[in-house]
Amino acid sequence: MTRVEQGVRTPLTRLLDPRSIAVIGASADPAKRSYHVISALLRSDFTGQIVPVNPRGGAVLGLPVTRDIAELPYGLDVALVAVPRDAVAGVVRQLAGRGIAGAVVLANGFADAGAAGAALNAELKDAIAESGVRVVGPNTSGMIGVASGANLVGVPDIPLGPVALVAQSGNMLLTFLADLRMHRLPGLQSYIGLGNQIDVGYADCVRELAARPDVGAIALHVEGLKDGRSFLAAAAQASRVRPVVLLRGGRSAAGARAALSHSGSLAAPDGVARSVLAQAGIELVERSDELAIVAGALATAAPIAAGLGVAVLSDGGGHAALTADAFAARDVPLAALAGHTTAGLATLLGPTAAVANPIDVGGATDTHPEVFVDAARLLLADPAVGLVLIVGMYGAYHLRFDPRLQAIEDATSDRLVELSREYGKPLVVHSLYAAGPCSSHDILRAKGIPVVASIDHAVRAVAALHHRGEYLASATERSTFAVSVARAGSGAARVLAEPAARELIESAGIDAGEWVFAATAAEAAAAVARFGVPCAVKVVSPQIVHKSEAGGVRLNVTDGAEAFTAIVARVRAAVPGADITGVVVSPMAGPGIELLVGATADPIFGPVIAFGSGGVLVEAMRDVTFRAAPFTRLEAMEMIDETAASKLLDGYRGLPKIDRDRLAAFLVRIGDFVASMPRLRELDLNPVIASADVIFPVDVRIVLADDSTKEM
Amino acid sequence: MTRVEQGVRTPLTRLLDPRSIAVIGASADPAKRSYHVISALLRSDFTGQIVPVNPRGGAVLGLPVTRDIAELPYGLDVALVAVPRDAVAGVVRQLAGRGIAGAVVLANGFADAGAAGAALNAELKDAIAESGVRVVGPNTSGMIGVASGANLVGVPDIPLGPVALVAQSGNMLLTFLADLRMHRLPGLQSYIGLGNQIDVGYADCVRELAARPDVGAIALHVEGLKDGRSFLAAAAQASRVRPVVLLRGGRSAAGARAALSHSGSLAAPDGVARSVLAQAGIELVERSDELAIVAGALATAAPIAAGLGVAVLSDGGGHAALTADAFAARDVPLAALAGHTTAGLATLLGPTAAVANPIDVGGATDTHPEVFVDAARLLLADPAVGLVLIVGMYGAYHLRFDPRLQAIEDATSDRLVELSREYGKPLVVHSLYAAGPCSSHDILRAKGIPVVASIDHAVRAVAALHHRGEYLASATERSTFAVSVARAGSGAARVLAEPAARELIESAGIDAGEWVFAATAAEAAAAVARFGVPCAVKVVSPQIVHKSEAGGVRLNVTDGAEAFTAIVARVRAAVPGADITGVVVSPMAGPGIELLVGATADPIFGPVIAFGSGGVLVEAMRDVTFRAAPFTRLEAMEMIDETAASKLLDGYRGLPKIDRDRLAAFLVRIGDFVASMPRLRELDLNPVIASADVIFPVDVRIVLADDSTKEM
Repeated sequence: MTRVEQGVRTPLTRLLDPRSIAVIGASADPAKRSYHVISALLRSDFTGQIVPVNPRGGAVLGLPVTRDIAELPYGLDVALVAVPRDAVAGVVRQLAGRGIAGAVVLANGFADAGAAGAALNAELKDAIAESGVRVVGPNTSGMIGVASGANLVGVPDIPLGPVALVAQSGNMLLTFLADLRMHRLPGLQSYIGLGNQIDVGYADCVRELAARPDVGAIALHVEGLKDGRSFLAAAAQASRVRPVVLLRGGRSAAGARAALSHSGSLAAPDGVARSVLAQAGIELVERSDELAIVAGALATAAPIAAGLGVAVLSDGGGHAALTADAFAARDVPLAALAGHTTAGLATLLGPTAAVANPIDVGGATDTHPEVFVDAARLLLADPAVGLVLIVGMYGAYHLRFDPRLQAIEDATSDRLVELSREYGKPLVVHSLYAAGPCSSHDILRAKGIPVVASIDHAVRAVAALHHRGEYLASATERSTFAVSVARAGSGAARVLAEPAARELIESAGIDAGEWVFAATAAEAAAAVARFGVPCAVKVVSPQIVHKSEAGGVRLNVTDGAEAFTAIVARVRAAVPGADITGVVVSPMAGPGIELLVGATADPIFGPVIAFGSGGVLVEAMRDVTFRAAPFTRLEAMEMIDETAASKLLDGYRGLPKIDRDRLAAFLVRIGDFVASMPRLRELDLNPVIASADVIFPVDVRIVLADDSTKEM
Repeated sequence: MTRVEQGVRTPLTRLLDPRSIAVIGASADPAKRSYHVISALLRSDFTGQIVPVNPRGGAVLGLPVTRDIAELPYGLDVALVAVPRDAVAGVVRQLAGRGIAGAVVLANGFADAGAAGAALNAELKDAIAESGVRVVGPNTSGMIGVASGANLVGVPDIPLGPVALVAQSGNMLLTFLADLRMHRLPGLQSYIGLGNQIDVGYADCVRELAARPDVGAIALHVEGLKDGRSFLAAAAQASRVRPVVLLRGGRSAAGARAALSHSGSLAAPDGVARSVLAQAGIELVERSDELAIVAGALATAAPIAAGLGVAVLSDGGGHAALTADAFAARDVPLAALAGHTTAGLATLLGPTAAVANPIDVGGATDTHPEVFVDAARLLLADPAVGLVLIVGMYGAYHLRFDPRLQAIEDATSDRLVELSREYGKPLVVHSLYAAGPCSSHDILRAKGIPVVASIDHAVRAVAALHHRGEYLASATERSTFAVSVARAGSGAARVLAEPAARELIESAGIDAGEWVFAATAAEAAAAVARFGVPCAVKVVSPQIVHKSEAGGVRLNVTDGAEAFTAIVARVRAAVPGADITGVVVSPMAGPGIELLVGATADPIFGPVIAFGSGGVLVEAMRDVTFRAAPFTRLEAMEMIDETAASKLLDGYRGLPKIDRDRLAAFLVRIGDFVASMPRLRELDLNPVIASADVIFPVDVRIVLADDSTKEM
């Protein structure tokens, strides 16, 4: 693999793709990490300089040991720092003096270790800020450039391939490697263990890795994101050129507790994180045993072109049904085959075959595995088919039935590779024999066709290729997160009076419906009379947060003066001394669908909009989805589609039909508004009433931060 | 393995556990199935008589070939029938004449193959009924008694173990065997390929297998159940003594289509099937790659005692978080450890460990894997812990770090086996190295401790042990499906008039709320006056199905005569000539929670009750669960808990608090009623209003079959 020269190398590039390495705290003891690292570097193809440093001097594995950092040759790229935690900050400062771009710090006991750790953490942060040395870690397992041989972990014999892995935990590297071996998956281009992320984080890594020509996909294991918004921007940019796959640890309460003690990471609420990470084009996997499989498939196989479906070509009916079930569970469409395709299949496969998708060859291939070529050609030629998944015993009939079939099966694999290229459509193969040695599988894998032992894993990989194709087709209509937005602080906050909140959103072009502020009983009476229909009347008072409970709300009011007087009396009785500035009068909402729209300033991802079904009963079902703001019209349409509320919008059982374009525009305006309000802490429009011709909030609640804000 | 004699062997037992075998259509051609079978029988430990039959005579693999079925020795247990489909029915009749108990029919082209197949299918059915010969198949891959060597499939070298597999498809046997090998799982006691189930079905197999002492778990792959109700009875009986695990093909529309063409099976609606199969104590798996793992764990490991939780003991924080997430996703509780347990762990593991569950040993085991013994002992001794799951690199430190650790790791496994026995609590191990050879893993597996390579699979297996423990603790409070219930036919049906429907359920002791039938305007006025509150008034007419749409419903009525007259006028206008017998008058329902209760006569499972949230908005979310009727109070409580409606019952946001015991009793009565009504086709109580002191249906709709019914 050749290295592409890219002009001046930034400090981050030098750190993450080093060409020369110092090992601080190098040991000649074979039980020590620094020894393993030097051993692995010498065993690999690493051609750059390797300089062990230890005050004791001597030699490690034949390399002379430098006694002092001050004696290092000037301008090495990176130092592996294998010294006790108390010495780390000092070492980092010394490294700057020798022109070293970055350090990989192994020691733990910083943000993950109480008060003493916190003090050392602060000290190391200062050293980084003042020295300009970039740091990976602390509490990291290290870093590996597999192609270059820059192995700073010490695990030997990493298979080279197109996947770049960034993980919070060294055990995830071992998990990944075990999965590669067990499932015969594509290998690694590189590994970065981020540990506590005191400096270098996921955003840095994703930007660097997306720019490398030999990276086919970026696989991430994440427990916490230090700056979620900047990660979203990096991931959205990367996703446009490279698939990004992410496994998140700490999604549950118990998992989050484990993540906090493991890497000092604060996990995001699961629903928010899932939604906004997907918004950035990231493929999220839920199972730890899927990360390597999905990343491997995305790194080697082409995406399924948007709008096209999958053809399942099985050599057994039982497998065909289970595969169709698994696709249905993942909402991946099976292709509706053209009449001439099914006719061609019927002719080819004979009367025992089932030629509706999923296809069961009905025994036609048992003694003639080459029939897969003709069947695959018919399917790939069908304009509705975007990918063919072969399911069953493909490639191993010679192991199951007759050894003489091996040559035919190898030739069949060669032909399938050609067909996939000819039609420009990917193939994926499930085979019961995928975990064992099999020449016809090797032929496919060498050309980037995944061969997978589990139907569920194969379907998961195909689903990722489907998502990828859909994403790429609409990437220009999606958020880049390039807009700088503010993140509200966590200090004091105050609730705006409702009239002020309504005026604020109206000034942003958001319809707040019809309403009037009435300061007196006479004004209230006039307002009700002017609207000419029964109204809702709600108290306005800085001391009253829960208006209904304080007796501050009257519905279906026809006598405004009476309602005003009654509300004032009840609120005074409930909250003695409350300042009542007046009431908000608005016409009762007509028939419509109750929706929930809200916003919060997420501490990790910044401003986030929530959308879902409204009303007390439905809220109990938590039918809600999220997007980081601002977002695009397409993303707003997808928000709507993701919720069960979407089922109610098209005239369900006599409900009014809602204009989805208008609703999407409403959501986009809310997103723009929230993103432009640096001090906004919370926005609640609950419920929002959508009817045939209007969309407006019944209640508007805004919480603003009083303290200063931080630019993201 | 010794065979336990059980006195007189029934024909079914002789068929499914044969001691002598005829092979009809035996061939000397090594490409033929019959040849493979004879070869596999000779290679195995099968000690019984094997008699090949072929009109050509001669010998197959050294066995003399009998020319005619009529010349067979009398009373062989089973015949493998490897003849073309047209000859099958005739062969079955001949077999009866030689006292053969059963036949395994390989040919396909019966119910799976259009009109010609259907005719042959009918002919074979007649032959079975008239001869008394029991038949497995047709379209079957065969049957294997692994312990006895009765291998009628011809796949050699099946690993012997405690799992009995019954599948619709021969490929599922190969899938199972591939999984056994890849994951080093417990082997097979037997295999039965059911194919088209013309005679022997899942219920027969489950009954037979549950009675075998060497079966540890029964694994089922099912596309369709010919008689679902009788299967539920067999499974519920079996579940009380043996774990039953089921993977269902054809859950989706496309999958069901594939299943129909594959095995002629009619798939059940997914929600109904899932609910009622679980009601019978069956462990349902959704992924085809989970069947072997879950069955293997249930066959070898003890269940988790009811009410206890899982302790996760990990050697890496990343794995700990992912494991906790996976348990949370499956609703499996982690144990809340006692203070002295965490204190003991802290002392044992040192300051870098995290001792809240999930536990991260924080490096304490890297050079001292024997520490797992002390950690596991502390956890097993904790009264809240029902199972310990070890996660990470257990047993393979000698492969990762230092070969000298192997002896220590082997001894550690021996000690863990002892500890698990001493405390009577199961252990499960996840290890990155589980797929490869490893002596310390072999020690665990030999004693029934599962060792699994994927965290997700390990968690899935533990979830099954949790479900099993909960089930066994309450099995006596659950349905046995022993009650014979009727299955409504599919012919003509009629809707009962609402007053008749209300009287019917009231006579069954089900509260229909307050209501009155009024035949005249005067009666309607009197009824409204008597109730003294606003009423609902609904037309009663055999021609009016959708009352609201025909103008036949008035709500909040205070003038009964006016409402009666208006309804009659509107309905006459909407449906000229409709017979209007009167109206039902009932008080408007007070504040309460809308629920949905319904019943259908499921063609596969018989009477099934649906329960969930009611109301138009919520119905769009399909919050509904099912049970076969009749069912128990415990099962009714579980129905309530499974739905999101349950979140609304405890006084959610000012809603009334609902008495769950009363609601469960209401559901049980509905189930009893439906099960006792052989002609009931549909029952709809929608909505049912539950409030603080009453539960009653607002609307009652009953559809009865006019045709005769079939006893199940």
